[in-house]
Amino acid sequence: MKLTIDRPFALDTRLQADTHLLGDFALSRVLLMNDARFPWLILVPRQPDLRELGDLLATDRHLLLDEISRADEALQKLHAPHKLNIAALGNVVEQLHVHVIARDPQDAAWPRPVWGVGNAQAYAGEDLGERIATLRAALDLHA
Amino acid sequence: MKLTIDRPFALDTRLQADTHLLGDFALSRVLLMNDARFPWLILVPRQPDLRELGDLLATDRHLLLDEISRADEALQKLHAPHKLNIAALGNVVEQLHVHVIARDPQDAAWPRPVWGVGNAQAYAGEDLGERIATLRAALDLHA
Repeated sequence: MKLTIDRPFALDTRLQADTHLLGDFALSRVLLMNDARFPWLILVPRQPDLRELGDLLATDRHLLLDEISRADEALQKLHAPHKLNIAALGNVVEQLHVHVIARDPQDAAWPRPVWGVGNAQAYAGEDLGERIATLRAALDLHA
Repeated sequence: MKLTIDRPFALDTRLQADTHLLGDFALSRVLLMNDARFPWLILVPRQPDLRELGDLLATDRHLLLDEISRADEALQKLHAPHKLNIAALGNVVEQLHVHVIARDPQDAAWPRPVWGVGNAQAYAGEDLGERIATLRAALDLHA
C-alpha cells in the first residue's frame, strides 16, 4: 500500500522568480518569461508532484496539448513568428513545465535554442503592463 | 478556392542522414538519432508539409502526444533516466519533428539541452544492430 498525502499545487520558486503571471487555463498556469528578447510563454499544469508528461493522466495530457496549441495560436496571431519552439525539458527546474517560444531569424539566439544563450533582459516597467494586457487578450485569460 | 496538389510524405533529407529508422507508429515515423552520447528518439508525423503542431488536426495532435508517451515509456523502461527532454524546435530542419531524449546528470551536455553541444558520436557498427533491436522491442515496432 502506498500512502499519499494530498498536497496542493505550488509553483516552483525559480519559475515564479523568472516569470510574470498571465492567468490560468483549465489545467495550466500560464506565465510570461521575463525576457524581452523572446516572446516566451510557460505552461505549468496545476497538479502537485508532476515531473514528466507521463505523470499526467492521458486525458490531461491531451488537455495540456490543447492548451499548448492555444498558446501557440496566440503567439502566431501576435508575432507571426518564423517558427515556434515547444519544449518540456526540466533539467534545472524539475516541476513539469512547457516552453512555447516564438522564434525569428533576427532573434538573439537563432538558430540555436534559447536556453543558456546570453542573459535575460527583463521587461521594462512601462512595457510590461501593456505586454501582459496584450497577451491576456490574445490568450483569452483574465488574471 | 485554394488549389492543392496531393503530395506524399517524404522525410527531410537531413533527418534521414542523421538517424536510423526504427519503424512507424500509426502517425509517426520513429527514428534513432545517430549519436551514442544520448538515448535520443525522433518522431516525424507522416503527413506532407507539416511545420508546426498547429498544422495537425486536433485528433492527430492527440495521437502524436500518445506516440510521444510511448517513446517516453520505452526510454524510461530501458534507461530509467533522471529526466526526459521532449521538444519540437525546427529552427534548422523545418519539417515537424519531435525529440524525445533520455537525460542524466552524467551525460555530455547536462544540464544544458543537447542541441549544438559537442559533436555527435555515431553508433559503432557492432552496437547499432543491437541498439536498434532493443529499441524496436521496447517500442513494439517492426521495421
